[in-house]
Amino acid sequence: MKTGKASIRFEKPPCIIGAASVVGKKEGDGPLGNCFNQVEEDDMFGMDNWELAESECQKRTFLAALQDAQLKDRKKPDFLFAGDLLNQLTASSFGLLDFELPLFGLYGACSTMGEALCLAAMTIGGGMAQTAAAVASSHYASAQKQFRFPLEYGNQRPYASTWTVTGCGSVVLAAHPSVERHSEKLRPYAYVTGVTAGKIVDYGVQDSMNMGAVMAPAAADTILQHFQDMNCSVNDYDRIITGDLGTVGQTILLDLLQQNDLDIASRHMDCGMEIYNARKQDTHAGGSGCGCAAVVLCGYILKKLLTGQWKRVLFVPTGALFSPVSFNEGQNIPGIAHAVELESPEPD
Amino acid sequence: MKTGKASIRFEKPPCIIGAASVVGKKEGDGPLGNCFNQVEEDDMFGMDNWELAESECQKRTFLAALQDAQLKDRKKPDFLFAGDLLNQLTASSFGLLDFELPLFGLYGACSTMGEALCLAAMTIGGGMAQTAAAVASSHYASAQKQFRFPLEYGNQRPYASTWTVTGCGSVVLAAHPSVERHSEKLRPYAYVTGVTAGKIVDYGVQDSMNMGAVMAPAAADTILQHFQDMNCSVNDYDRIITGDLGTVGQTILLDLLQQNDLDIASRHMDCGMEIYNARKQDTHAGGSGCGCAAVVLCGYILKKLLTGQWKRVLFVPTGALFSPVSFNEGQNIPGIAHAVELESPEPD
Repeated sequence: MKTGKASIRFEKPPCIIGAASVVGKKEGDGPLGNCFNQVEEDDMFGMDNWELAESECQKRTFLAALQDAQLKDRKKPDFLFAGDLLNQLTASSFGLLDFELPLFGLYGACSTMGEALCLAAMTIGGGMAQTAAAVASSHYASAQKQFRFPLEYGNQRPYASTWTVTGCGSVVLAAHPSVERHSEKLRPYAYVTGVTAGKIVDYGVQDSMNMGAVMAPAAADTILQHFQDMNCSVNDYDRIITGDLGTVGQTILLDLLQQNDLDIASRHMDCGMEIYNARKQDTHAGGSGCGCAAVVLCGYILKKLLTGQWKRVLFVPTGALFSPVSFNEGQNIPGIAHAVELESPEPD
Repeated sequence: MKTGKASIRFEKPPCIIGAASVVGKKEGDGPLGNCFNQVEEDDMFGMDNWELAESECQKRTFLAALQDAQLKDRKKPDFLFAGDLLNQLTASSFGLLDFELPLFGLYGACSTMGEALCLAAMTIGGGMAQTAAAVASSHYASAQKQFRFPLEYGNQRPYASTWTVTGCGSVVLAAHPSVERHSEKLRPYAYVTGVTAGKIVDYGVQDSMNMGAVMAPAAADTILQHFQDMNCSVNDYDRIITGDLGTVGQTILLDLLQQNDLDIASRHMDCGMEIYNARKQDTHAGGSGCGCAAVVLCGYILKKLLTGQWKRVLFVPTGALFSPVSFNEGQNIPGIAHAVELESPEPD
């Protein structure tokens, strides 16, 4: 049911019953390397080009998420919500083709996992489906080629820039934990108790190498809106987790929120800052790409909720609506962020 | 509530309470020219580039749809579902920025109006919102530049090719006709009684100048799925309306359906075949682009339903998931189509 201006609180919260993450070598070498289902050493994923590599990564991830969900009779989710960073969602088109599922293609830049989770949860929460899945991916090489320079060009990267994560995360959601599954005792990873849909926020940023500055105002807007709509406070959450702001974006986010009398510093975590060891791995401000928030959610955050180490988190994937065309035409780069409230199945 | 494999039948059907369409000169010169809210003679819409022209077109259309919906106190819809053909949804990012609405960005190629209608109706039908809006646009020049050749190149167009519509359509949906509106007696245009979400369909087509052939198998798949899920037949509909198959795609659709013992020839209409006078306007196989189905829906189809001339139609926007990158890498072009069942407010 809609709450406030942009939020929905679910009367019957859907739950996450399956999750999987597949990443590339660099992500496997990072601090969260042992959290992911698969680490693929070959950045081509055995394919002939970067786009197909990303599709293959999606395919493996979604298969693993389906296996993890343990739906009866190899049933598949009712609806699929998916997206990636590539133009025309190429990675999703070819990665998810074989599953033959009713599909809603989404574009929210790096906020796509948030958008997909919102819509999948809304579809189940509204009684429209028993199960639904969300998929989001990115690939360092397919993204650099499309948005900036081909890797062969070897351009220098400023310190504010982030490193696009090669990886895919996928979750399977259900109306309740025992829906059509092999064992009725399987506990869900987490419940989706509410969502806040973001709006486009344009702070006038024109630096295509500083996505953190683009996305931080959108993250601040969505977090403030969420707290207002849901009438809650920072202390209600063990972590407030943004997608891929990186170090530069984090500073801006914390500043913007403090200007609005909200201090989240002690509870803030950014997926982009967790996934790499910036100094050792030369990733500068952090990780980014739809895959960043998606793999950290599936590999790390959900396990913290499953075990009850965290009782409640606000997951806020952040996207820069960066178009090389409009950018070269002199336009600003706006941002968007969607928030998803996740609760542990462990009682307090 | 989910019905069959990919469909939802609404227990409380949402209704369309506002609609608007804005088109370019060529569309204004076509057979439906006097159906649209605005015909803009300047293909630049007074802006500096094609991308901003499309954004301006979206802005005007959504404003007109809001005015048409007559929501009380200039209220805006709870959620917005929008998309276009441009990479990173550039037209929507800048066209809808000023409205400051919670936004879900969608990419379904030319099926986007179907996808947006499905999700907006599902959000309301599931009790998640009282109002929601859908927006989809395309622009001949911004699309040609991105997908094929810049206009200045003056390439020849084969007869199977379609002409991308310059235009935008937008609808406002509500949980019931009198929701928060100025007059409680305002009748809705139509009710959204059910939806069928499409899946990606790949028939192995590799001709980027023949989008009809790409989309027809997806349209056939969704129509067959809809009839199966909803347990209904051709005679239940006054029209079965595809988005932008054009003449080549129509032939393929009718053939494919006949191979499955379904004859819709007498009830079939294609928005792409209605919007231009192909011979006089040199548009070859017909119109295409997200804007095509969207403006024909808002300018023409909804009025037929409002007046009761048509009691029930199946609206099936069709999309070609055509990526110039994957195409040049030798991949096929898959398609997708989403179906929306619309019923007249006029009693039988």
